[in-house]
Amino acid sequence: MTVRNAFYAQSGGVTSVINSSACGLIQEARRHPSLIGKVYAGRDGIIGALTEDLIDTSFESDDDIARLRYTPGGAFGSCRYKLKNLDDHRAQYERLIEVFKAHDIGYFFYNGGNDSMDTAWKVSQIAEKMGYPVVCVGIPKTVDNDLPLTDCCPGFGSVAKYVATSIREAGYDVASMSRTSTKIFVLEVMGRHAGWITAACGLASENTGEPPHILLFPEVPFNPEKFLVRVQECVDRHGYCTVAVSEGLADASGKLIADSGSKDAFGHSQLGGVGQIVAQLVKDKLGYKYHWALADYLQRSARHQASRTDVEQAYALGVAAVKLALQGKNALMATIVRLADAPYRWEIGEAPLRDIANVERKMPADFITADGFHITDACRTYLQPLIEGEDPPPYRKGLPDYVRLKNKAVEKKLMIFNI
Amino acid sequence: MTVRNAFYAQSGGVTSVINSSACGLIQEARRHPSLIGKVYAGRDGIIGALTEDLIDTSFESDDDIARLRYTPGGAFGSCRYKLKNLDDHRAQYERLIEVFKAHDIGYFFYNGGNDSMDTAWKVSQIAEKMGYPVVCVGIPKTVDNDLPLTDCCPGFGSVAKYVATSIREAGYDVASMSRTSTKIFVLEVMGRHAGWITAACGLASENTGEPPHILLFPEVPFNPEKFLVRVQECVDRHGYCTVAVSEGLADASGKLIADSGSKDAFGHSQLGGVGQIVAQLVKDKLGYKYHWALADYLQRSARHQASRTDVEQAYALGVAAVKLALQGKNALMATIVRLADAPYRWEIGEAPLRDIANVERKMPADFITADGFHITDACRTYLQPLIEGEDPPPYRKGLPDYVRLKNKAVEKKLMIFNI
Repeated sequence: MTVRNAFYAQSGGVTSVINSSACGLIQEARRHPSLIGKVYAGRDGIIGALTEDLIDTSFESDDDIARLRYTPGGAFGSCRYKLKNLDDHRAQYERLIEVFKAHDIGYFFYNGGNDSMDTAWKVSQIAEKMGYPVVCVGIPKTVDNDLPLTDCCPGFGSVAKYVATSIREAGYDVASMSRTSTKIFVLEVMGRHAGWITAACGLASENTGEPPHILLFPEVPFNPEKFLVRVQECVDRHGYCTVAVSEGLADASGKLIADSGSKDAFGHSQLGGVGQIVAQLVKDKLGYKYHWALADYLQRSARHQASRTDVEQAYALGVAAVKLALQGKNALMATIVRLADAPYRWEIGEAPLRDIANVERKMPADFITADGFHITDACRTYLQPLIEGEDPPPYRKGLPDYVRLKNKAVEKKLMIFNI
Repeated sequence: MTVRNAFYAQSGGVTSVINSSACGLIQEARRHPSLIGKVYAGRDGIIGALTEDLIDTSFESDDDIARLRYTPGGAFGSCRYKLKNLDDHRAQYERLIEVFKAHDIGYFFYNGGNDSMDTAWKVSQIAEKMGYPVVCVGIPKTVDNDLPLTDCCPGFGSVAKYVATSIREAGYDVASMSRTSTKIFVLEVMGRHAGWITAACGLASENTGEPPHILLFPEVPFNPEKFLVRVQECVDRHGYCTVAVSEGLADASGKLIADSGSKDAFGHSQLGGVGQIVAQLVKDKLGYKYHWALADYLQRSARHQASRTDVEQAYALGVAAVKLALQGKNALMATIVRLADAPYRWEIGEAPLRDIANVERKMPADFITADGFHITDACRTYLQPLIEGEDPPPYRKGLPDYVRLKNKAVEKKLMIFNI
């Protein structure tokens, strides 16, 4: 086989472990100099390919690449950009081939979620439909945990560990003060369509009465009356009530609660803030003082509290993607296959991109309790191993010591292309 | 000396390390069985003393007391309740003496902030003015870092480490996505009157251009025009802009920005949310997409990311309080004395409660840069050692394994007292 270069890009919302996949991929590629020349990273994802804005990772030292394993965010930049379909928008694909040819790219690695696997799937068709030989492999990544055909998605386990830790800790705080001060605490977490992250909060509650007391899932239409009854019961019994709510909480008609309420000073509908809306509802109807927190990007970048399982899987998937590509396996995504729940055992698998692209995995109905306010034992069995293990980054001057790469650009060879 | 019992209470907003002080205090008291009998904790702070709601800590095992060192929140409950002055409200003080007498309490330890040291000071006068022998010692605690006569306040260093870590991590996230998505990120932190916590965020920015780019202090009147110019410069230069804002940000007239803006769906003025108001201002005026996070209780309960320096100081102050009391030193607070900046060296000192009660330590003016948007080197020199060192709690099932005490009540001997 001849030596060819590889293209790697990060896509969609970044996570605290997507760079761990990049680390695994680049380290594995460097072990095969007779097959893979350089690894070019797309600056800001697939946009980097379309605009010929490539980063030459060979300028990064082995040490800095190793540091990617514990650095959050997307080291090469990411983007939300979905390629259109191949048949109607050939120009984009012709441009990709032009860039691939100019830089002798024979391997295309795409690290992302649903939309990204759709892009990867489309690119994987180039070889067949447009006659350019490129092996295309997907690497899963999404805090939303909504890709099918893999046990879980890198990024999710660390968010899960972070939110469960956070609501446990806040619960200790609220419990201390509830007699004379705040009785209600609401944590708003990500997950617009699926309640995986909200469910993960539930792991903090190992015994009855422990925070969080109530989970509000996007899968369960919000019923204010039922919710308020539950809050009152909780305050009566425990003296306080802690709630984790998904940003995607909606009413029976599917309308987001976040859109239902308040306008800001400028008359705009408020984005986000469902946590506050729910907390304010309690204050208005039951009169309890509340606090609320909005984890937002903190949850998906909290590398300091990453799950070791998650980090190891992200890394292993990066390595596996190179191995699959070197076997010539086109149009696949590397996956996690669960072998056992407890102790958790897993191995790397593979699944066709075609079966993954645009398919959203929902939470199983039996993961939510019958009353709609908590998780079941089946859910715990699934989630528990994903948050196991710690993997703290190194610290310098009291703070995590993350890497910033040089990200040196490859010299352009082509005309400008407007995406 | 005869054996007498001790009373210990936690007061005001709790922190991730106040239990570390409790741990030090109880462990030290147990080393002196010939002088200190039982340590009774007030359930929910001083209210526990007034209502004779005492917790007998002798029922807690040595192991569980040791676990307090790494458990956030207030293990015995806390409250916001300020004793009125002694001369006009003798009934409250007579009740305290009644409870102290009934339970042979000769030592009074109060663990809190400004208001709490005022309460401790008032109680310390009982011996002199009302003839009941009790030695009263204060133990500092406040995330606000605003007590005078001590280098810093336990609780602050850990919040500082948490917020600096969080905005560094979120900065990596935003930087990755800024080309095609969110360009503005705002983190709202605590500190209504003083910008210590906002300042601590600035430690994450070690080199020019690193997040956070802009700090908005309560000490600096908010000037929207100047702020927007700075945001635009930052986006032009770096592609994105990260901001840490204090909940206490105010305009030139002293009016809180959080109160200036929006009403919710029910017509109430929104509490908190200055982070969103500032972010929305950027969107309205400059058109940039934003995200914002509200750390709220997460920051002051994040024991998983505590500063080792902070934990050690909290513990040492608990131990020191017992030692001072056994020397008969009434009406003092144990303090931290800084001996050197780098490497940081400190020792335990003492200061009169009279000089601490109700005195608020502000940030020195030379800790904020001339433009009002960041911290100076003098500020870094002061803050840096306070976040140094990690002290992770033990983990079980992927989450911090915190203790819940039995908190067994002491049998009441007195009539009910309405506070």
